[in-house]
Amino acid sequence: MNSPSPRRKRLVILGSTGSIGLSALKVARDLPERVEVIALAANKQGSVLAEQAREFSPQAVALFDESGLDDVRGALPEGTKLAPAGVQGLIDLATLPEADMVLVAIVGTAGLAPALAAIRAGKDLAIASKEILVMAGEEVTREAAKHGVKLLPVDSEHNAIFQCLAAEPARHIRRLILTASGGPFRRTPAEELPNVRLEQALKHPTWKMGRKITIDSATLFNKGLEMIEARWLFGVEMDRVDVVVHPQSIIHSLVEFVDGSQLAQLSHSDMCFPIQYAVTWPDRLPNCLRPLNLAELGSLTFEAPDPVRFPALRLAREAGERGGTLPAVLNAANEVAVPAFCEGRISFPRIWGLVEDVMRAHENIEAPTLEQIIRADAWARTTAEALLPEGAGVA
Amino acid sequence: MNSPSPRRKRLVILGSTGSIGLSALKVARDLPERVEVIALAANKQGSVLAEQAREFSPQAVALFDESGLDDVRGALPEGTKLAPAGVQGLIDLATLPEADMVLVAIVGTAGLAPALAAIRAGKDLAIASKEILVMAGEEVTREAAKHGVKLLPVDSEHNAIFQCLAAEPARHIRRLILTASGGPFRRTPAEELPNVRLEQALKHPTWKMGRKITIDSATLFNKGLEMIEARWLFGVEMDRVDVVVHPQSIIHSLVEFVDGSQLAQLSHSDMCFPIQYAVTWPDRLPNCLRPLNLAELGSLTFEAPDPVRFPALRLAREAGERGGTLPAVLNAANEVAVPAFCEGRISFPRIWGLVEDVMRAHENIEAPTLEQIIRADAWARTTAEALLPEGAGVA
Repeated sequence: MNSPSPRRKRLVILGSTGSIGLSALKVARDLPERVEVIALAANKQGSVLAEQAREFSPQAVALFDESGLDDVRGALPEGTKLAPAGVQGLIDLATLPEADMVLVAIVGTAGLAPALAAIRAGKDLAIASKEILVMAGEEVTREAAKHGVKLLPVDSEHNAIFQCLAAEPARHIRRLILTASGGPFRRTPAEELPNVRLEQALKHPTWKMGRKITIDSATLFNKGLEMIEARWLFGVEMDRVDVVVHPQSIIHSLVEFVDGSQLAQLSHSDMCFPIQYAVTWPDRLPNCLRPLNLAELGSLTFEAPDPVRFPALRLAREAGERGGTLPAVLNAANEVAVPAFCEGRISFPRIWGLVEDVMRAHENIEAPTLEQIIRADAWARTTAEALLPEGAGVA
Repeated sequence: MNSPSPRRKRLVILGSTGSIGLSALKVARDLPERVEVIALAANKQGSVLAEQAREFSPQAVALFDESGLDDVRGALPEGTKLAPAGVQGLIDLATLPEADMVLVAIVGTAGLAPALAAIRAGKDLAIASKEILVMAGEEVTREAAKHGVKLLPVDSEHNAIFQCLAAEPARHIRRLILTASGGPFRRTPAEELPNVRLEQALKHPTWKMGRKITIDSATLFNKGLEMIEARWLFGVEMDRVDVVVHPQSIIHSLVEFVDGSQLAQLSHSDMCFPIQYAVTWPDRLPNCLRPLNLAELGSLTFEAPDPVRFPALRLAREAGERGGTLPAVLNAANEVAVPAFCEGRISFPRIWGLVEDVMRAHENIEAPTLEQIIRADAWARTTAEALLPEGAGVA
């Protein structure tokens, strides 16, 4: 009954000081016989990165933003090299000859270039940055297939679907059903949404996450991005990707098969579950994570998302269906809108209003090159910025 | 995306006029390009069997009880042979050279001999008669392994677990969690159970089934038998098999893996789902069965079974843990107790009282031969009968 003991997986973590990165290090700490952390990269938090380096003794670390480099230099353990700042450092780490798997957990679009570099170097990819597939799903999945590289989803929803699919071929899929907590405004009447304050939007009912993704969960843009991500990860058309609101976040997603049967994956909402699964796949290893007791939970509830109060799902479905550069434009406009809301410059509903305005102004390019995608992303940011009211204060 | 078109599966149905048999024929009717019914056997209902034969034109049919043979003779289509009555006819059908798969859906213990004959003839087995594995799980699973025969569970619970396990090795299983509707007395106080009437016990909240299994669902002996069945089908120890009450019968069972993740299978409660899956496995085929809409359902609830009001689970766990001839004894005593309750000879709680009395009186035989199991079964019936009050009227 014992499995053969495989050698340790050599893991590169891009985004080690963020919420996903910290959970990944927790998993590595729990499974030292299976995971070896060989490289770490962070955005700004140099002293946290240095502390992580002292614990895990990686070959190399990188800090994207050079302003924090002073906290890293001199604070690294012997044998740990410091890679250059900026995207080159991320690429250097993602293509280390010794790496087996690269976990890309960088907020925003900075993960795209290192992810593609890792794929082309033959590294398996654990994907937590949904922007990678939203912006360049076609390119990323094509390159992965070409280089025989496995894409392992770390988002709890896609990880759930990955588990449910197991050995099932794509032709068995009728629908992928992503669950959504519904966010803090699930019960808020439409007329109150313009008055929503930042503190309210940051109160996620079930998951503890970074600020950007928490706001995205409140608008449901997070779920919209996940719909597009699912389309690419699992090779299905956009109209086969559905969303159901499930406030308890226990069922992380479901697959409906052509025979009408559904499979669901369940656990408490702790990112260590999907991260560990991605890192140890196809194995499953015992851990100390809290198991689920359905009788204690009592009930799981479900409701349809409200398309009127939450237009993000409609916009994302449209972007995913039309493809081309439009998903990158939706994502980039949202990346401008969210900080603008956080700074009090626009109201909560203006987040999706701004995204829709930018999408309507965009001339979509079909089958774009990576260059065209990056240009569309930049165009969308500039266009969105121009549509913001000047100075502070809610528009 | 198209699967290669496999040839039709040639199916023998033992128990074609019962609830499972009728659902199996519905599946065969819906998938004529994939399923060919080559033999049918029933217990008593000769005219129904003959009508089925006229629709499906099987090679052969058999009626177990010869009193109904007059309804069959002369009513069969040209080319359909009538096998002998009794167990020999069932064995003849189960070992037809042309058969690929035998569906054993006979109430009670009569399915054991034909199931073993089918396995030894190299036929895959779709198992709906849980008595086969409860009585002789060790022998049946050993013989199946020896003859390279696949055991496909048709019970919705075991079929759910089979789907959740997919390619997962047994070492990944932490627990199998069988769901139970809880039956019609889920909320009935213990002191009212002695006054329960037959009509109440026959009102199953979610499934339409035969009389014996409906009473077994009310006492939870059905779930107890399923616990023992699961132990053998999936090769786990008894203490890894748990039960959770789930009144809506939408989640048909779950698997908890060693990493704390759970997978669940969901569908409406219609036996066509698991039967089709067993028959078409490893394929999944589109059908007209009603798909599930979680948002419409609204909520799924769960609670722990009450061991005081429903001792059947405790007795079954004990029988499954001790093994030997004890599971056969539990099953046989229950098969005597249920009709005695239906005839008004004993009260509802006396069903488990009687089963426990017979278990306590039994001298368990470890690693029994099939002969010893059958003798223990007969002994348990005689012993249970002797413990019944004489004549009618609630004891």
